[in-house]
Amino acid sequence: MSNPAETVNLAVIAGDGIGPEVVAEGLKVLDAVTTAKVARTEYDLGARRWHATGETLPDSVLEELRDHDAILLGAIGDPTVPSGVLERQLLLRIRFELDHYINLRPAKLFPGVASPLDVQRVAPDGIDFVVVREGTEGPYTGNGGALRVGTPQELATEVSVNTRFGVERTVRDAFARAQARERKHLTLLHKHNVLSYAGHLWRRTVEEVGQEFPEVTTAYAHVDAATIYLATDPGRFDVIVTDNLFGDIVTDLAAAVTGGIGLAASGNINPDRTAPSMFEPVHGSAPDIAGQGKADPTATILSVAMLLEHLGRIDEARRIENAVAADLASRSDTVRSTSEVGDAIAAAATQG
Amino acid sequence: MSNPAETVNLAVIAGDGIGPEVVAEGLKVLDAVTTAKVARTEYDLGARRWHATGETLPDSVLEELRDHDAILLGAIGDPTVPSGVLERQLLLRIRFELDHYINLRPAKLFPGVASPLDVQRVAPDGIDFVVVREGTEGPYTGNGGALRVGTPQELATEVSVNTRFGVERTVRDAFARAQARERKHLTLLHKHNVLSYAGHLWRRTVEEVGQEFPEVTTAYAHVDAATIYLATDPGRFDVIVTDNLFGDIVTDLAAAVTGGIGLAASGNINPDRTAPSMFEPVHGSAPDIAGQGKADPTATILSVAMLLEHLGRIDEARRIENAVAADLASRSDTVRSTSEVGDAIAAAATQG
Ligand SMILES: CC(C)[C@H](C(=O)O)[C@@H](O)C(=O)O
Ligand SMILES: CC(C)[C@H](C(=O)O)[C@@H](O)C(=O)O
Repeated sequence: MSNPAETVNLAVIAGDGIGPEVVAEGLKVLDAVTTAKVARTEYDLGARRWHATGETLPDSVLEELRDHDAILLGAIGDPTVPSGVLERQLLLRIRFELDHYINLRPAKLFPGVASPLDVQRVAPDGIDFVVVREGTEGPYTGNGGALRVGTPQELATEVSVNTRFGVERTVRDAFARAQARERKHLTLLHKHNVLSYAGHLWRRTVEEVGQEFPEVTTAYAHVDAATIYLATDPGRFDVIVTDNLFGDIVTDLAAAVTGGIGLAASGNINPDRTAPSMFEPVHGSAPDIAGQGKADPTATILSVAMLLEHLGRIDEARRIENAVAADLASRSDTVRSTSEVGDAIAAAATQG
Repeated sequence: MSNPAETVNLAVIAGDGIGPEVVAEGLKVLDAVTTAKVARTEYDLGARRWHATGETLPDSVLEELRDHDAILLGAIGDPTVPSGVLERQLLLRIRFELDHYINLRPAKLFPGVASPLDVQRVAPDGIDFVVVREGTEGPYTGNGGALRVGTPQELATEVSVNTRFGVERTVRDAFARAQARERKHLTLLHKHNVLSYAGHLWRRTVEEVGQEFPEVTTAYAHVDAATIYLATDPGRFDVIVTDNLFGDIVTDLAAAVTGGIGLAASGNINPDRTAPSMFEPVHGSAPDIAGQGKADPTATILSVAMLLEHLGRIDEARRIENAVAADLASRSDTVRSTSEVGDAIAAAATQG
């Protein structure tokens, strides 16, 4: 961990749908908590810009992003834009170009939060794990193609690309995170009985890198079986490491069982710090509720805490987490607006 | 639906682990219920044979299997056999060679069955849907490979192969199943915002084939979001259609939320009847409890019901399902052995 950053050059991509609303609350809490000098630059990226100019992420903007200490992203995506355009050309392009090879997604059931699970029965000791999702390989590379599109002979392929380089750096990061936790347990999720080439690479890498971490115990679960465990025994997990697509799937389920994507934060992290990391709620742009002050900003606020932690400002990160925990514990059936939730957490974090 | 089969030439592959125990109960119930003349041939396939002879599925056995009306499979897989060998060379080989392009997996929460979900809150109207999983394409084709294995330059790929032919026949089957159900609703699960080539093929095919089924309403969910729905609102689903890998993942989760894989039945179906279909519990060989009479045979017994239904013996299928439902409704905390459960269901099905 580097020394705490005293100045934070922050790029903000509010994005589409509820993105601007939740980002506003994230920034409110950031301002309330941090003593760092924060310089913010807002980038107008997403559906509006694409409609107006056809641009998703101009090269010049990508280069500007590189000059920041971190990026805060709201949400990307709109039903008026063809599927995949903003996802691949904007969101995934940032993750790939800035080498965000660790997509870090904590899953914690905070006290007072309702889970769809019968928690007393299936998770009596609570739920508290973190998923280390590989972020720059797997089926997300855009490799693949289509032939004879629109004919009865159409053929479409998607290629999952996995390298020892990419897998090893992810696995090592996951082991280090497991090592730093109380339970020191790492579970690899894959499907090596069917996806043998990639599966065996992941498996061997976990075995080999594991020798550097003798205190960490390891387990393996097929991704299908893992969804069963997430529903029936989520407390078994401490750190999960998995590929980009399996990670995408299980982190949505993990969010669901810990109270919903309204609470799920994530970091797209470049651990080598060769480029800024990006923090974003796991949820999408939710166009159906955009602009109504209904969105829960908690996931974004927790993403701000992850951002501060990444910048070495651990105390401030903890204060936000504690404020969120206190707010969650005291939530009643009274519906609060997006900004009321932000106000409450900002106030608690300032006192905390 | 063809006329009810009066003679059933049945191939039985009991397989590994708990396979033989649960298959014995499935056959017990079959014998108790059916008035068809059943001729059974047992095939010794699985870990034992592989250890003894190195064989997984000899070509001659595959040809013999073709001469049957249906196949009942217990479970395949053993920790003493390298991962992927029995899965690919035996189980997947049968599914592919016999063109089991519909992998049908009902998910129903029977009265009296405990779900890990807080059902009163998240599924007050019950859970009753069926997943139509494509069975012969997607990431399951074994396409892909590895280069420079064991070196820092290792590269491993997995190729998802999707054809209009394969997708269309699956989608049409799923629409027909939706059409025959009360709610007439079909949900496509995919990830077309990232896996664009395959995703767009699936999406377009659903739109086009849907025109043949004007009464069926359709919806789409990304596979990651679908896991959230399965945990928080599973009642929304009626028929799900999806690819081989997504289907594998969501059917384990579907089994979990409807009471566990001890109850989940499946059919590997060749709807064109150019080869026998194969029925099997969704669970695996569970070597940790094998030979102890602890396995729940219910999933296999329900798979026998699907087998009878496939052979047009609808009444007998319903009698088994009703007997299972009655047994599940009356289960207490008293632990019963595998054969006691089979006895009870066989007795109820005979009276029913
Ligand atoms: C929007 C989409 C491209 C993205 C992903 O699949 O990674 C999202 O689901 C996520 O998990 O951040
Ligand atoms: C054993 C394995 C190859 C198989 C699959 O992935 O299809 C199993 O998980 C299943 O769902 O039937």
